[in-house]
Order: sequence, then C-alpha cells, then structure tokens
Amino acid sequence: MPDPRVSAMADGLVGSEILRIAADIRARMAEGAEICNLTVGDFSPAEFRVPERLAEETIASLRAGETNYPPSDGVPPLRRAVAAFYERRLGLRYPLESILVTGGSRPGLYCTYRAVVDPGDTVVYTVPSWNNNHYVHLVGARGVPVACGAEDGFLPTRDLLEDAVRGARLLVLNSPLNPTGTGFDAGALAGICDLVLEENARRAPGERPLYLLYDQVYWMLAADSAPHVDPVSLRPALRDYTVYVDGISKAFAATGMRVGWTVGPADVTRRMASLLGHVGAWAPRAEQLAAARLLESDDEVDAFQARMRRELQARLCALYEGLERLRARGHAVEAVPPTGSIYLSARFALHGLRTPAGAPLRTNDDVRHYLLEAAGLAAVPFQAFGLLEDTGWFRLSVGAVSLAEIEPLFGRLETALDALEPSSVPSVSSV
Amino acid sequence: MPDPRVSAMADGLVGSEILRIAADIRARMAEGAEICNLTVGDFSPAEFRVPERLAEETIASLRAGETNYPPSDGVPPLRRAVAAFYERRLGLRYPLESILVTGGSRPGLYCTYRAVVDPGDTVVYTVPSWNNNHYVHLVGARGVPVACGAEDGFLPTRDLLEDAVRGARLLVLNSPLNPTGTGFDAGALAGICDLVLEENARRAPGERPLYLLYDQVYWMLAADSAPHVDPVSLRPALRDYTVYVDGISKAFAATGMRVGWTVGPADVTRRMASLLGHVGAWAPRAEQLAAARLLESDDEVDAFQARMRRELQARLCALYEGLERLRARGHAVEAVPPTGSIYLSARFALHGLRTPAGAPLRTNDDVRHYLLEAAGLAAVPFQAFGLLEDTGWFRLSVGAVSLAEIEPLFGRLETALDALEPSSVPSVSSV
Repeated sequence: MPDPRVSAMADGLVGSEILRIAADIRARMAEGAEICNLTVGDFSPAEFRVPERLAEETIASLRAGETNYPPSDGVPPLRRAVAAFYERRLGLRYPLESILVTGGSRPGLYCTYRAVVDPGDTVVYTVPSWNNNHYVHLVGARGVPVACGAEDGFLPTRDLLEDAVRGARLLVLNSPLNPTGTGFDAGALAGICDLVLEENARRAPGERPLYLLYDQVYWMLAADSAPHVDPVSLRPALRDYTVYVDGISKAFAATGMRVGWTVGPADVTRRMASLLGHVGAWAPRAEQLAAARLLESDDEVDAFQARMRRELQARLCALYEGLERLRARGHAVEAVPPTGSIYLSARFALHGLRTPAGAPLRTNDDVRHYLLEAAGLAAVPFQAFGLLEDTGWFRLSVGAVSLAEIEPLFGRLETALDALEPSSVPSVSSV
Repeated sequence: MPDPRVSAMADGLVGSEILRIAADIRARMAEGAEICNLTVGDFSPAEFRVPERLAEETIASLRAGETNYPPSDGVPPLRRAVAAFYERRLGLRYPLESILVTGGSRPGLYCTYRAVVDPGDTVVYTVPSWNNNHYVHLVGARGVPVACGAEDGFLPTRDLLEDAVRGARLLVLNSPLNPTGTGFDAGALAGICDLVLEENARRAPGERPLYLLYDQVYWMLAADSAPHVDPVSLRPALRDYTVYVDGISKAFAATGMRVGWTVGPADVTRRMASLLGHVGAWAPRAEQLAAARLLESDDEVDAFQARMRRELQARLCALYEGLERLRARGHAVEAVPPTGSIYLSARFALHGLRTPAGAPLRTNDDVRHYLLEAAGLAAVPFQAFGLLEDTGWFRLSVGAVSLAEIEPLFGRLETALDALEPSSVPSVSSV
C-alpha cells in the first residue's frame, strides 16, 4: 500500500542498513562493551585532523566577512585551483566551464545522475558499491547492478560490463572503491574505457550517448604501491562522456566541511550548475576559499597526504596482518591486501557454524551480529553496498580507529572464532 | 529538438533571468558607470556582517576539530535549539523528529517538493514568488501559478486560491514574500488556512492530502509594524499538513554559511532526511554547532535583529520616500510602503514613453534597461519571479547597498524620467 502522505519516490526510499547497524553498536557500547568500530566511512578528528591550513584559511575567510552567497558554480579561485590541481597532479587539462563546486561530493553524484538520466534509462553500476541503488531510485532509472568478485578485487572488467552497457545511459565506476578499498589498474580500466568508446561509436550521430561517472573521491589516498588511474588520462576521447566526482571530504579528512567538485564536459556541467543552484547544495563560501588556498599549496598537500597515507596504511596493514595470522592458524577468515583509501575487504566465512549459545550462523547479518557480540568487532557486510549474496565479505573502515584499538581486537576475535562449533544447518550460500 | 546530451529535465531548465541581468550590470560597471545595485537578494558583508557570535563559534568549532560528518538530519544541539527557538519565539511546539537541518534553506524547499509531490501532481503557488516555477519543473508537477495584485500586497487571498487548491497536492506560500517584501496579516492567512483545512476535510480518509509549504525564511526581518504570522499558530489543526522552511541565511545575513532547517510532520520529515542524505545538501558541521549557540542566545539574537531591522528599514524607507517624492512631482512611479525583509516593490509605469534616443519602452525589460543605462538604477522586474504581465513592477533589494549609495540615485532617476517623451507606440500591457 503506498503511503498517501508522501510521494511515490519518497515512499520507496529504503532505510540505510548502515544506520541500523550503527544503532546496534551504540546499544552495545552503552552496555560498556569494548568495541573496535570499523563501520564508519568517515574520520575521527581524534585520529585524523583536517590540514591546519584548511582550518586556518576558513577562519581567516570568516573573519574577512566571506559569509555571503557563493556563485552557483563556485567561487572562481576554487574553480581555478581545481583546474590547476588536476593539470599538475593528473595531467588533465580542463577549462573553467568544466569545473563545478558542490557542497561535498554527494551533490556531484546526484547532479550527474539528474543531468543525464531520464526516468526509465538504464544505469549500470557495480556491486558492491556505495549508494548507487539509491541514486537509481531517485531518478527513476532502471538499475543494472553488475556483481564483481574477490578475484578481481571487486572491480569490474570489460567482459563483465560488455552486455550491460549496450543501450545504457550511464555507467558508474568508483576507484578506489568504497566499500572495498581496491582500485583499478591501468589495464582493467583501459579495457572498460574502450568498451564505452566502442558503445558510443556504434550509436548513430545525434543519438543519446553513454556517459561514464567516475567517482574518484578517494584517489589521493591510494597507496604508492597502487597508483590511481583515471579514464580521460587513459583514453582522451572519453572527455566528452566522462564526469569526475571529487572533493576534499576524504582526501583531507574534511567530510563535515562540505566542499566537493565535479569535472566534466562543459555542456553537462552547465546544466548541473543550474540544478545545483535550485537544490542549494552549495559549499559554504569560506570553506571554498580555504580549499582553493590548500590546493594551491603543493608542499602542504604533499606533507599532509604522506602522513595520511602512512597512518591509514598502518591501520589497514594491522587489520590485514591480524586476519592473515588467524587464517594461518586455520580460521575461516581472509582479507584483500590493502591498497589505500580507508577500507579493507575482509571475509568471515563462518556460515554453517553454530554460536556457543547454539544459534546457527546463516547470513552475513548473523555473522555481523556474532562478531559484534562476541569479539567487539563492528563492521558492515557488503549487502549494505548492494551485493545480495551472503558471501561473508565485510567492509572494515579505519578512519575512526587508532592502532591501539586495533591491537586487542585479534585476541577477542580468536576467542570468538574458537568458540564456534560445527552445525548441521546448511548455510544459505555456499560461495 | 531535445538535446541528446542531457536529461529532459536538465534540457528544460530555464536559465536565470537574474543572472542575465547581473551580467548586464557588470558590463555597465566595467564601463565606469555609477550604479545603485538593487538586484541582489543577498547581503554585502560591507553593510551587513553576520553576528560575531556566529562567526566566533564556527571558528571555535573548527579549532575543536568539528570537521567530520554531521548526522543526516543535523547535529542534535541545533535541532534542539531550533525546537526551543520556535517554542519561545513563535509559540510552536514540535518534537525533535520534526526538525531537519539543511544546507541553507533551498534544500528544504527542494526536499519538501520531492517528498510529497509526484510527477503530474498539481502545485499551486502565487506569482510573483521566487523559484517555484523551477521546483515545479524539477519534480515534473503541474504548476498552477496564481497571480496576485498590488492591491493585496502581491499576496494571495482565500478567494484567489479557492478554485486552484481543489485536488491539488501542494500549496506554496512565502511570507514575508520575496520579491515584494510584503507579508500576510493574520486575517488573510487564516482565511487560506481554513481553505486548506476544508479541502483536506472534503477528501476521503486515506486520500492524498493537500500540503502547505510555508517559506518563512525572512520572518525575523519583518518590521515591528507588520508582525509575522504563521499557519500552525493560527490553525493548530494544520500541523499535519504544514512544512516550514527557514534558516539563518537571511535573518543573520549568513547566506554563504549554508545553515537552514525545516519544521514539519515527523513522517514527512523522516523521508526528507533520507533524501537530503542522498543528495548531500547538508550544512557544514562547525556552522551547525555555531548556529545552535546563536539561537540559544536570546540577548544576542535580539540585539542583532534590532540593528538589522533598523538598518534595513532605513534603506527601504529611503527608497520608498524618494520614489514618493518623484510621484508627488508627477512621475509615473509608485511603491508599496515597506514592511521589513530586504525588498521593496516599486512600479515604473513608463510603458508607452520614448527614450531620448527615440526607442519606445514596450516591456518591463525595456524599462529595466533604460533605468540601468540612464539612471544607474539596477532592479529586477517581477517577470523574473513568474509574473508574466508587463505591469512595470520591480523588486528593489537593499541587502547590498548603503544609504550613501541610495541618496544620489534620485537625482539621476529624476533626470532620466524627465528625459522620456510621449510616444504613439502603444504599450504591450495597459494594466
């Protein structure tokens, strides 16, 4: 029964799985439990502060009275700074008309969807990934989720996408990927780029093209061992079909300062700016000016990023190595080697076992709940990112934890794993 | 021909008339012309600074590391502060579940539209008003603009709306009104409230109700002589059908700090919060915390508002009296007595006259252009706010001008009016 009080779109919005899990964690912590909270796709300021320059330039702008409306497409100094930053750091040259400042990075995703997708259009996205199912719903599109496996680092290949993109309007990629922390290598991404170019080449002149939304909001956090790659650098012909979504939120631990940007074809960007103006999802003016000053300071960016990547990698490696030690001792856990960002993909293949209380572990949510109760390990299963199968894979996020909180986790975890018993109940999935 | 590169919605977005006018003004100023710029619906920090407390609390929050994600519905201190502020200042009691923090006030308008309006639904709004034609387009609704005349202060009456609301989904009201600066009195608003209640009473139980979006973002700037009124205070039974849109943007000259809020039924608010989270149109965290501290400080709010209203009223009165003096001397100008906010409604009934260069003034845009060229008076015709007729009415906004800039305007204006000559060309409209 539709709810007559709200629109069909609003009625169809699904609640956030992550918020439900967060409530579970809060309840456990209120009971005094020791929890290593790896669920938060954010940064704790106690662990990761924003660059001092970013804070101080925001403060200076506020004191200078920079508190009135920014232009609808962003203050010119920030648009210029983004263009110059992309040229210096990624080798991408774009005119100012291609740069749109947004209030954080989500409005960039939303505006891209709305600027190119009509109701009923096909949107291809991979799972696991963040929030695409919701954006598809918001624009009334036909979503085609393409499941990606651990063997490919949960990233798509050309082969996986070949059928899906036929006739589609939008392909959404994210690298490094939330929730997995994995990123494309040049070969895999180039294959997909060629697929997009071929699909557009087969369409008639004047026919509606296939676009590529490339969410690279974590690119500055890629580990040195796994350098970030992007579509237009690999295939310049993709320039007319690619919209980059980016911002300071993750790269500078500044999720709450609400400064993001998109870089894309000028004609699409102009429409996105109009939409953004009506929606009002603008970045605050003082923070925009501060972000411009930060991006102009190569030394500060480099120093901040070096520390950030080192600290994140230390946490990711501590988790990875701890899980590998447990695996070496015969436990049914594994993890993908970390390559940057703030996420680690970890598998707890505990389906089919029984808890000491006799409860069978059937689903990822059963596993999640047991790990939280018995080991104080709080993580988000890939179901929250659109992967439907109970494969035992979880997102472990390190932005809000210290190394000191990670260390004692493994003792608790091993005790919890040791306490599990074989069960005759079959697991839902045998993957 | 639809543009195959963008969605039909994006393709149908009409460009902002105000931006086109702004470009015109910049060109004139670049030529060295003396311009009194009354086009900007914003504040110049040189004339109106944000409250010192708001800036300093934002700075303190930034220094304290309040730079990570806010909750999707806003930080609890601000939601509590808004609830308490509404109770103290408006006598409205709402639970926290009814308060949603937004990134400025526009996202509140957008989210209300999207949370209750389905494509094809009827949305009734009055003209002149700000941006409703765009919001109607964004949600694919059927817009029913109801033109309001100078005799009613450009505000609707029950009689004007009686037919339009039959079967409608949403009625949008704004008081004090952008672009006119006029506000409802209790009698007029109560009549409309009764109409909404009667319309909902005539619908079957379980039928989709009519909602009232009440944009009161200028309410704190209402002159003491014209106190603000609101629907639920007048008719408490409207509580289930009313969404208030509000924020610090206008009341505290803080358009660039991006803090707004909505107050409405909890079930609708919950859906709006989900949508807002996906769109990402959140207020920055430090600014949210600062806004909470400001709203809690009655003395500071009162002192700031008193000064603000005094300064705005001085500018509005200077404009009004200057125009009245010209009218007394026989010029075809008039204005609505100012009642607060930052806007004055002024009429330049110059249609049918000829410029010294011999050009006939046929449309409001001809008049606008002549006033800019010949008098250095920059203003926005009501066409930019959806009123189609060339009635000669303009919005004059005082948020970005000093009294010193207003004074010399009238000499220039009188010279320009004196220079006009009768013409045999009939005007487009004889209203």
